[in-house]
Amino acid sequence: MANASAANSTGQQASPAPRPIQAGVTLDFATLLGVAGGFILITSAMILGGSLGSFIDIPAMLIVLGGTFMVTSISYTLKEVVRAQSVMLRAIAYRQQQPSDAAMQILSLADVARKQGSVLELQKHMQNLRNTPFLHKAISLVVDGIPADDVARILEREVYATMQRHMKSAGILRRAGEVAPAMGLIGTLIGLVQMLGRLEDPSTIGPAMAVALLTTFYGAVLANMVFTPLASKLERNADVEAQVNQIYAMGTASIGRQENPRRLEVALNSILPPSERVRYFD
Amino acid sequence: MANASAANSTGQQASPAPRPIQAGVTLDFATLLGVAGGFILITSAMILGGSLGSFIDIPAMLIVLGGTFMVTSISYTLKEVVRAQSVMLRAIAYRQQQPSDAAMQILSLADVARKQGSVLELQKHMQNLRNTPFLHKAISLVVDGIPADDVARILEREVYATMQRHMKSAGILRRAGEVAPAMGLIGTLIGLVQMLGRLEDPSTIGPAMAVALLTTFYGAVLANMVFTPLASKLERNADVEAQVNQIYAMGTASIGRQENPRRLEVALNSILPPSERVRYFD
Amino acid sequence: MANASAANSTGQQASPAPRPIQAGVTLDFATLLGVAGGFILITSAMILGGSLGSFIDIPAMLIVLGGTFMVTSISYTLKEVVRAQSVMLRAIAYRQQQPSDAAMQILSLADVARKQGSVLELQKHMQNLRNTPFLHKAISLVVDGIPADDVARILEREVYATMQRHMKSAGILRRAGEVAPAMGLIGTLIGLVQMLGRLEDPSTIGPAMAVALLTTFYGAVLANMVFTPLASKLERNADVEAQVNQIYAMGTASIGRQENPRRLEVALNSILPPSERVRYFD
Amino acid sequence: MANASAANSTGQQASPAPRPIQAGVTLDFATLLGVAGGFILITSAMILGGSLGSFIDIPAMLIVLGGTFMVTSISYTLKEVVRAQSVMLRAIAYRQQQPSDAAMQILSLADVARKQGSVLELQKHMQNLRNTPFLHKAISLVVDGIPADDVARILEREVYATMQRHMKSAGILRRAGEVAPAMGLIGTLIGLVQMLGRLEDPSTIGPAMAVALLTTFYGAVLANMVFTPLASKLERNADVEAQVNQIYAMGTASIGRQENPRRLEVALNSILPPSERVRYFD
Amino acid sequence: MANASAANSTGQQASPAPRPIQAGVTLDFATLLGVAGGFILITSAMILGGSLGSFIDIPAMLIVLGGTFMVTSISYTLKEVVRAQSVMLRAIAYRQQQPSDAAMQILSLADVARKQGSVLELQKHMQNLRNTPFLHKAISLVVDGIPADDVARILEREVYATMQRHMKSAGILRRAGEVAPAMGLIGTLIGLVQMLGRLEDPSTIGPAMAVALLTTFYGAVLANMVFTPLASKLERNADVEAQVNQIYAMGTASIGRQENPRRLEVALNSILPPSERVRYFD
Repeated sequence: MANASAANSTGQQASPAPRPIQAGVTLDFATLLGVAGGFILITSAMILGGSLGSFIDIPAMLIVLGGTFMVTSISYTLKEVVRAQSVMLRAIAYRQQQPSDAAMQILSLADVARKQGSVLELQKHMQNLRNTPFLHKAISLVVDGIPADDVARILEREVYATMQRHMKSAGILRRAGEVAPAMGLIGTLIGLVQMLGRLEDPSTIGPAMAVALLTTFYGAVLANMVFTPLASKLERNADVEAQVNQIYAMGTASIGRQENPRRLEVALNSILPPSERVRYFD
Repeated sequence: MANASAANSTGQQASPAPRPIQAGVTLDFATLLGVAGGFILITSAMILGGSLGSFIDIPAMLIVLGGTFMVTSISYTLKEVVRAQSVMLRAIAYRQQQPSDAAMQILSLADVARKQGSVLELQKHMQNLRNTPFLHKAISLVVDGIPADDVARILEREVYATMQRHMKSAGILRRAGEVAPAMGLIGTLIGLVQMLGRLEDPSTIGPAMAVALLTTFYGAVLANMVFTPLASKLERNADVEAQVNQIYAMGTASIGRQENPRRLEVALNSILPPSERVRYFD
Repeated sequence: MANASAANSTGQQASPAPRPIQAGVTLDFATLLGVAGGFILITSAMILGGSLGSFIDIPAMLIVLGGTFMVTSISYTLKEVVRAQSVMLRAIAYRQQQPSDAAMQILSLADVARKQGSVLELQKHMQNLRNTPFLHKAISLVVDGIPADDVARILEREVYATMQRHMKSAGILRRAGEVAPAMGLIGTLIGLVQMLGRLEDPSTIGPAMAVALLTTFYGAVLANMVFTPLASKLERNADVEAQVNQIYAMGTASIGRQENPRRLEVALNSILPPSERVRYFD
Repeated sequence: MANASAANSTGQQASPAPRPIQAGVTLDFATLLGVAGGFILITSAMILGGSLGSFIDIPAMLIVLGGTFMVTSISYTLKEVVRAQSVMLRAIAYRQQQPSDAAMQILSLADVARKQGSVLELQKHMQNLRNTPFLHKAISLVVDGIPADDVARILEREVYATMQRHMKSAGILRRAGEVAPAMGLIGTLIGLVQMLGRLEDPSTIGPAMAVALLTTFYGAVLANMVFTPLASKLERNADVEAQVNQIYAMGTASIGRQENPRRLEVALNSILPPSERVRYFD
Repeated sequence: MANASAANSTGQQASPAPRPIQAGVTLDFATLLGVAGGFILITSAMILGGSLGSFIDIPAMLIVLGGTFMVTSISYTLKEVVRAQSVMLRAIAYRQQQPSDAAMQILSLADVARKQGSVLELQKHMQNLRNTPFLHKAISLVVDGIPADDVARILEREVYATMQRHMKSAGILRRAGEVAPAMGLIGTLIGLVQMLGRLEDPSTIGPAMAVALLTTFYGAVLANMVFTPLASKLERNADVEAQVNQIYAMGTASIGRQENPRRLEVALNSILPPSERVRYFD
C-alpha cells in the first residue's frame, strides 16, 4: 500500500496534476448510420417495387410534417419549440464523458487533496476543469468551505434537475412521435372520405387510395424512424450524463468529508460496470 | 464579497426595495398558432381534394361533440364540467412567472431581511407581493412568527396540493381526449351497420361509408389536435408554476431560518436551468 | 386575537356546539345526465339513419352482456360480483361532504377542546357526529386517551385502507370496461367466420356483416359510455372521500396534540383549493 | 372493561384456547362459473349461427395453443412452466382465510399471552396453528425470544417476498395472455398470405379467410376468457393472502411488544373493511 | 443447539471448509425449446397450407431485419449494439446460482467466522469463491476491515447498479421488439401503395398484397417470438441474480456485524420461497 502511493506521487511537494479531460464534441455514428441506413433501406424498397414518384405527395407531406409541428407546439411554448431543433442535433453530435474517465479524474483530485492535506490545494487545478462545468462547480463549492453534507445535497439536487430538464427536451420529440401517426391517420381519413364521395369511376379508386395511405406512411416513418429513436437516444445520453455527474458528486462529497480516497475508489467501483471499473491506487 | 454587498445596498438604512413582479396575463402564441395552424392545414387539404361540404355532417358532429361532453361529464361533477370550459381558456391566456424572476425576487427579500436583521422588516414590502399570492402567503407565515420548519412543511404541502389540483383540471381534457375517438368509433359503427343493412343499391355504398367515417375523423381531430395537446399544455404550466412556488418555498424557509442569502442563491441555482441561473450578489 | 375568539364564543361556559353535518344522500346529476344524454344521442342517430330495429339483436346482446359478466366474475369472488351491482348505484346516488365543510367542523371541535381545556369535553358533542362515522371514530380515539401519534397513525392507515377498498370496487367496473370490447371482438369474429363460410349468396353478406358488427358496437358502447366513465366517477369519489378523511385525521391529531386551532386552520388551508379555503377564526 | 374480560375467560387458570382455523381447500365458484358460462355462451352463439364444425381447425389450434406455450416458456425456465399448470388450478381451488377470522385468531392469541403474562404460554397453542404456517412461524419467532422489532422486520420481509412470488406466478398467465393474440395474428397472417397467393378461384376466398380468422379467434378467446382473468384472480388471491399475513404480522409484533390487545384490536380494525371489523373484547 | 453445532463441525480446529459452488455455464432449455418449437410450429403451418416459398421474400426480410437493426441502433451507441448480439446469447447459455445454494454458502462462511471468532479466518476460504465474484468482493470488503454498515451500503449499491445494467441490456431487445412491427407496418404500406398504383390488372392484386403482408408477418414473428420473449428472459435472469446477490449482501453484512448465524438463517429464509428454504443448523 505504501509503495503503491509512492508509485503515484514522487513526493509530497510534487503533487500529481489531475489530467484535464479531452471532452471534445464527437459525432454519434450510431445515430447517423441508423437514420441514414434506415432511409436508404426503405427508399430501395420503393424503387425496387416501382417508381419513387408514387411515394411523393407534397400536400400529404404538409399535413403530416406541418401538422406534427403545429400540434406539438401547442403543448409547449414557442421558445421550447425553437430550441427543439437544436435538441435534435444534440442526438447526433455531443460531448460525453466515459464514467470511468470521470471516476479517474475525481480520484486524482481526491488524491491531491489528501496528499496536500487541504482541499484549498485543489484551487490550483481548477483551470483544468473548465471542460467539465459540473465538476468545476462542485470543486468550487468545496473550496469555498461549504460543509460536505450541504455540498452533497446541492449537487444531488442539480443532478436531478439537470436530468429532468434533459428528459423534458427529449419529451418534445417523444410527443412529436405520438402526434405524427395521428396526423397521418387524419390525413388518410380525409383522403378516404374524398375518395368514397366519388366512387363512380372505379379506375380512380386505386390511385386515390394510394395517396390517402401516404399520410399514414409518412406518419409511421417520421414517428418510428426519426422522432421516437432520437428521443430514446437523448434520454440515454441524459442517463449517462447523470451517471457521470453522480460520480463527480460522490467524489466531491468524499473530498469535502476528507475521507480516504481508497474508500472512494471502492464506492465508485460499486456503481461502475465491471468493464469500466477503475484502479487508481496500486 | 464586502464590496459586492456594498454595490447592492448603499447602506443599512436605505434597504433596497424588492421589485414587484409584472405578472400580467399573456396570450400563449404557441397554443394559438398551433391550434389555428393545424386547422388551416387540414382545411386546405379538404378543399384541395374536393369540396369542404363533404366533411360537414351535423348529426355526426352531434354524436362526437355531444357524446364526448356527455360521457366526459359522467366521470366528474356538473361543477367541474362547467369549470372545464374556463380551464381550456387558461391554456391560451394565463399569467406565468419565469423561475429566474421568482429567484431574483425571493433573493431580494432574503437580502432585505438579512440586512435589517429581522424578518419583521419584510412586512413593509408585502404590498408589493399582491401579484404573487403564494409568495405573499409564504412571507406572512414567516412574519407571523411560525417556525421555519413548519413554514417549509405547510408550503410544501400547498405546492403539492396546487399541482394535484391543476393536474386534475388537465385530466378532464385528457379524459375528453380519450372519449372523443371512442365516440367516433361508435358513430362509425352505427353508420356501417346502417349501410350494410341496405347494400342492394351499390351506388349508395361510397357516400354512406364516407359519412360513417366522418365521426371517426371528428373524433381523431378533436382528440389529437385539441383536447390532448391542450391537456399537455396545462400540465406543463402546472409544472412551471410548481417550480416557481418551489423556489418561493425554498427561499421563504431559508429566510425563516435566517440563513445567509448567498447560500440561498447557490441552492436556487442548483435547480434552475443554466440559462436561467441568477446572480443577485456580485 | 382576543376579540376574534370572543366573537366566536360568548363565554367559557357556553361553548359553541359544533354543527352536525347535513350529509344526506344526493343524486349525482352529472352521472345521470351523462349516461342518459349519451344514450339519447346515439339512439337518435340510429333512428335518423333508418330503423332502430337493425341495432337490436338478442344473441349479440347475450354474448356481450353475459360474457362480460361471466368473464369479469372470474377475476373476483361471487360476493364481490354481487356487490358490484350496488357499487354502480353509488356512482349515481351517494353521500359526500365538501372538504371545506369538513374543515369547518373539525375546526369547531378543535376550538371547543381548546376553550374547555380538555379533549374530554368533546364527548358531549359526539352524538352530532353520527353522520360522519370516520370523524366519530377519530374523536373517540382521542377521547379514549390514545396518544396523538398513535391516533394519527391509526387514522392514516384507515384512510389508506378505505381508499384502496374503494379503488378495488371501481376496479371491477374498470375490468368490465376492458372485457366488454374483447367480448365484442369475439362475437364479431364468430359472425365473420359464419358469414365467410357461406359466401355463395352475396345478398346475405351485408346483413350478416351488420349483425357481426353489432357485438363490437355493444362492446364499445358498454365500455366507453357505461363501465369506464362510472369507474372514473367512483375513483373520483374515493379521492374526495380520502381528502375529507385526511382533513379529519389532520384535525384529530392536532386536537390530540393540543395544538393551537389557528395553526390547524393554516395547515388545513394549505391543502384546500383556494375557492374552498375556510376562515373559522376572525 | 373488567366484566368484558371476565366474559371472555372464566379465570386466570382456564385460559381460552384460541380456536384453530378451518382452512380447508374450497372451490372458487366464481372462477368455475365464469369460465364455464363464458364458453357455453360463445358455443351457443356458434351453434345458433350454423354448425360448430366451422369453428374447429386442428392446425389453427396447434399454432395458437402450442405457440403460446412455446413462446411463453422462452421467458421462464422449464421448472416454472411446468409449475404454471398447477398455478392455474390454484385459481379454481385454494385455501383462503377471511381477514376477519385471522384478526379474531391473532386477538385470541394476544389475549392468552396477556392474561398469562408470558408469551411462552403461546407454545401450548401452537399445535392449533398447523393450518396457518405463516402464523405458526410468526408465533415461534416470538416464543424463541427474538426481539419484537426483529420479528416485525422478518415477517414484513416474508409478506413482501411471498406476494412477489405469487405475482410472478400470475405473471406467467398474464404473459400467456399477451402471447396468445400475437400467435393468433401470426396464424391469420399465414392464412391470408396463402389465400392471396391463389386468388384465381373466388369460391375458395370465403372459406380460406374463415380459417385464417380462426387463429385470431382462438387467440382472443384464450387471452380474454382464460389467461388474463385467471391471472387477475391469482393476483387478487395474493392480495388477500398478503392482507391476512399482514394481520398476523401486526398481531405478532404487538404480542412481542406485550402491548394491550385492545390497542391491537383498534389497529387491526383500521385496516379491515367496515363489514369485516371484529369485536373480540366487549 | 450444542449438538447441532457439533454435528456441523467436528471441532474448533478443523473448521468446515465452505463448499465452492459449481457454477458452470448451462444451456437454458426453455429458451431453446421455446424458440425452436415456435418456429417449427409456424413453419409446419406454412408448409401444410401450400409451399414455404410464398413466405420468403428477400427485400421484405431486408426491410424488417435491416430496418429493425438500423432503427434500434439509433437509440444506442455502436458499442452497445454490437454487445447486444452477445446479450442475446446470454438468454440461452448462462451461469446461474440457485438462491438456496447461495444461502447455504453464505451460512457456511458465517459459521466459520463465528466458530473461529474472527472474520479474518475467512481469508483462507477466499480461493473457493473465485466462481462467485460478487461474494468474493463482498467477503474481501469485510476482511479488509471496512465497517459492516459501509459494506452493506456498498454492496446494496452494487446489487442495484448491476440490476440496472442488465435491465438496460434487456432494454435493447425490448426496443427491437417495438421497432420490428413498426418496420413491418412501413413495409406493408410501401407494398400497398405500389399495388394500388397499378390496379388495372386484377390478377396481380392477390400476389402483390401477399407480398405486402409479408413484412407485417416478419415483424410480428420477430417481435413476438424472438425479441420480446428473450428480453423477458434476460429480465428474469437479472432478477434472480439480484436475489442471489441480495442474499450474499445480507449474509456479508451479518458476518461483518458478527451476528449469530442462526439469526441470519431465519432472515434468509424469510425471503426464500418455501421450497428453497435452507436448514444449515440442526
